[in-house]
Amino acid sequence: MSMSSLRELSLLTKDRNELIDITVRVQKIIEESGIKEGIAHVFVPHTTAAVTINENADPTVQTDIISYLEKLIPENANFRHTEGNSDAHIKSSIVGAHVTLFVADGHIVLGTWQGIYFCEFDGPRSRRVIIKILPDT
Amino acid sequence: MSMSSLRELSLLTKDRNELIDITVRVQKIIEESGIKEGIAHVFVPHTTAAVTINENADPTVQTDIISYLEKLIPENANFRHTEGNSDAHIKSSIVGAHVTLFVADGHIVLGTWQGIYFCEFDGPRSRRVIIKILPDT
Amino acid sequence: MSMSSLRELSLLTKDRNELIDITVRVQKIIEESGIKEGIAHVFVPHTTAAVTINENADPTVQTDIISYLEKLIPENANFRHTEGNSDAHIKSSIVGAHVTLFVADGHIVLGTWQGIYFCEFDGPRSRRVIIKILPDT
Repeated sequence: MSMSSLRELSLLTKDRNELIDITVRVQKIIEESGIKEGIAHVFVPHTTAAVTINENADPTVQTDIISYLEKLIPENANFRHTEGNSDAHIKSSIVGAHVTLFVADGHIVLGTWQGIYFCEFDGPRSRRVIIKILPDT
Repeated sequence: MSMSSLRELSLLTKDRNELIDITVRVQKIIEESGIKEGIAHVFVPHTTAAVTINENADPTVQTDIISYLEKLIPENANFRHTEGNSDAHIKSSIVGAHVTLFVADGHIVLGTWQGIYFCEFDGPRSRRVIIKILPDT
Repeated sequence: MSMSSLRELSLLTKDRNELIDITVRVQKIIEESGIKEGIAHVFVPHTTAAVTINENADPTVQTDIISYLEKLIPENANFRHTEGNSDAHIKSSIVGAHVTLFVADGHIVLGTWQGIYFCEFDGPRSRRVIIKILPDT
């Protein structure tokens, strides 16, 4: 196994719309890799979910993000896709399927208030997050 | 030529707003590079276009994304920029100009329903997509 | 110091909502690194700011982006977070905290009209941008 092979997280989401803090789990994968300096790429292989970085302190921030996205892109907005989850697809493209993180001294480089959040927009479901950590050369 | 030099796709878009599936063309460039394990960076050098990952099965998802973005950010929303394409610039920043993909065993790592889409927001035009594939070290 | 260590920009923003062109400063950091071919990752370690690529010519484009985001996600939209900056957190997740740039022949690869913009959504403040430049191997 090369140092930069793919790792994976499994998640069980509980609500239709939900932010789940995965910072500690991503950090653990970095530690297991043994890589001290590099880049960690976090990728969501789903089209009705996303990943973002946002505030890890006051949980009302996460509530506000989820609620306002629901207001901006409502579940029933006269969409053509008959599965009833077009709102989730749109949110996925707006928030994005990946984040890029710096690794320094074995730790994710994040601002004081930053955490990494898996964004569920069409749960509850079983979900995956794929992580690739690349060491500096 | 180094293994990680830049490659390019050319596109002719047909509508003002359009999603174009470029998954097969990106995969072909990866194959031509000979890189089996690595990262593929896809970058759009335009300010009224974007690139995203979303559902590749039911085409009504693509229609819903395009239509709802038009509703959210209308073409004529009392903008100051006189070229009449401020909506396209805003969509470009919201969706984003690049995606990062994992390459494993010579193939893009994508979820079952994921495809890579060039997003035209101010077409029809001739457009470019720049791709850089980096092998694992 | 390895060639791929972290560099940093400091910014003083002047308005609550503001786009600041950092293209020249990012280019200068690339030149100082001595790296000719590679990737430049630009990361914002804040949860009420972002970084994006957009038009560098007509400044009304920047005004339109800022103004329309304020209209789409107003400062006082009945949020639960009591600090009064939930709009800024939402914009941060929608625009995103990082951009990935190609470096070729010592220069950032950008389209004719593209510039790199720090996005302030809860200023005025003192802000940081972290940059990591990775040479091709």
